[in-house]
Amino acid sequence: MALFKTELIVEWGDCDEAGIVFYPNYFYWFDCTFQRMLRSRELGQRQLRSRFGAVTPLVDVGAKFLGPVRYDDVLRIEAAVVDWAERKFRTAYRVKLGASTVAEGHELRAWASLADGKLKAAAIPEEFKMLMT
Amino acid sequence: MALFKTELIVEWGDCDEAGIVFYPNYFYWFDCTFQRMLRSRELGQRQLRSRFGAVTPLVDVGAKFLGPVRYDDVLRIEAAVVDWAERKFRTAYRVKLGASTVAEGHELRAWASLADGKLKAAAIPEEFKMLMT
Amino acid sequence: MALFKTELIVEWGDCDEAGIVFYPNYFYWFDCTFQRMLRSRELGQRQLRSRFGAVTPLVDVGAKFLGPVRYDDVLRIEAAVVDWAERKFRTAYRVKLGASTVAEGHELRAWASLADGKLKAAAIPEEFKMLMT
Amino acid sequence: MALFKTELIVEWGDCDEAGIVFYPNYFYWFDCTFQRMLRSRELGQRQLRSRFGAVTPLVDVGAKFLGPVRYDDVLRIEAAVVDWAERKFRTAYRVKLGASTVAEGHELRAWASLADGKLKAAAIPEEFKMLMT
Repeated sequence: MALFKTELIVEWGDCDEAGIVFYPNYFYWFDCTFQRMLRSRELGQRQLRSRFGAVTPLVDVGAKFLGPVRYDDVLRIEAAVVDWAERKFRTAYRVKLGASTVAEGHELRAWASLADGKLKAAAIPEEFKMLMT
Repeated sequence: MALFKTELIVEWGDCDEAGIVFYPNYFYWFDCTFQRMLRSRELGQRQLRSRFGAVTPLVDVGAKFLGPVRYDDVLRIEAAVVDWAERKFRTAYRVKLGASTVAEGHELRAWASLADGKLKAAAIPEEFKMLMT
Repeated sequence: MALFKTELIVEWGDCDEAGIVFYPNYFYWFDCTFQRMLRSRELGQRQLRSRFGAVTPLVDVGAKFLGPVRYDDVLRIEAAVVDWAERKFRTAYRVKLGASTVAEGHELRAWASLADGKLKAAAIPEEFKMLMT
Repeated sequence: MALFKTELIVEWGDCDEAGIVFYPNYFYWFDCTFQRMLRSRELGQRQLRSRFGAVTPLVDVGAKFLGPVRYDDVLRIEAAVVDWAERKFRTAYRVKLGASTVAEGHELRAWASLADGKLKAAAIPEEFKMLMT
């Protein structure tokens, strides 16, 4: 299982009046990390559509917050697909600040094929699994 | 020229560490106000497409900030289309907190018809002008 | 257990290219709903500080997405504190579109007292529990 | 006048249903660019406070949109302080996609000193001007 790593800096607008990250932004970062992971495999939302005729709607997400994160902090996010079901896959995220893990989370995405403009749950192609593993 | 009025409350996540609104949110509110103004005329992005075959891309926007706005403040936003050019129209916004004007802004939108999936600048239909005036 | 209800309209900027809500916005709405629930009890972030010397940092959050939500949809969000531990409390959210539940989620918040500018986990005061129940 | 340059990638969540950037995000990017420009001079919101006892509230902002920007586009943003008044300074932004300029904008910021927790307009120190020029 390959670990994908990316980095980002916490922006002024990402924090709230208490001086810590407004928490929905963690999910924005998880999604960005997923997109970057796709890109690192020469994939993306457009490629998923054109190559596989598919989209990956979110089914279940969650996060635990283990320490405060503030403006100007440089975060390292690690991600990996940790579980493949027939029609769903789970990506786990770890957010690190220096040596500390400050947040953990997951996204469970479904595989849905687009036929005649309608979404239909479908089996995840082996080719996609291999690219993401 | 009809003045459209709407209200919103400043949310915790809208403010930054200094305890005032993170300014890009004003434009989110201008856009929301424009959509609500459309709705009040039984229009919307989908209706613009289905009824007029058109979209209204932004060309130029701006805002002046006249006083601080904080979490829990109840804002009243006033909007009106203040200028109609052949292919563009300008909406002006005023943001009020109690009796004070705390921000002013504008959006200049183009009228663009969608034909064969391509956008093309087009004259604004009289029907749309009448609905919005 | 009192059920708090609020309503919101899905804005143009809340949706992504696929025409459905970009999912971090659900958590923005959960947080807004929590703030509105506080307000309905004449509380708020500022009152928590001044009256109880406390803040309520997030510990664990999650959501399940059960159906698509789009621009212009009017959502009804129901919320209630469903579990009180000594130093943490859990709020559950249900997002409804018409008669359907389109999303469910939770926020687990800690009670932390602010003394000398430092946060320290503390027991939740009975007064707060009574106000929120 | 030194030109500061930074790069960013347009994320899935930054675009709307029409497949183009939801425009308030340009201002988020302008603010991020300003913060990065500060950082490149070893400054930041915290340093402005500790070193100069000052903050830089926004007074007037604007943008022109010259071409569509989409998910996955890599943008190059150029910024420079283009005008120094006694108590205000103006930063100009240019957003480039490949060889094209897709957006231009500005932020006019005031210099305000913090004394006894109150903001007061003040003359911009020469030291700050030299650092940012």
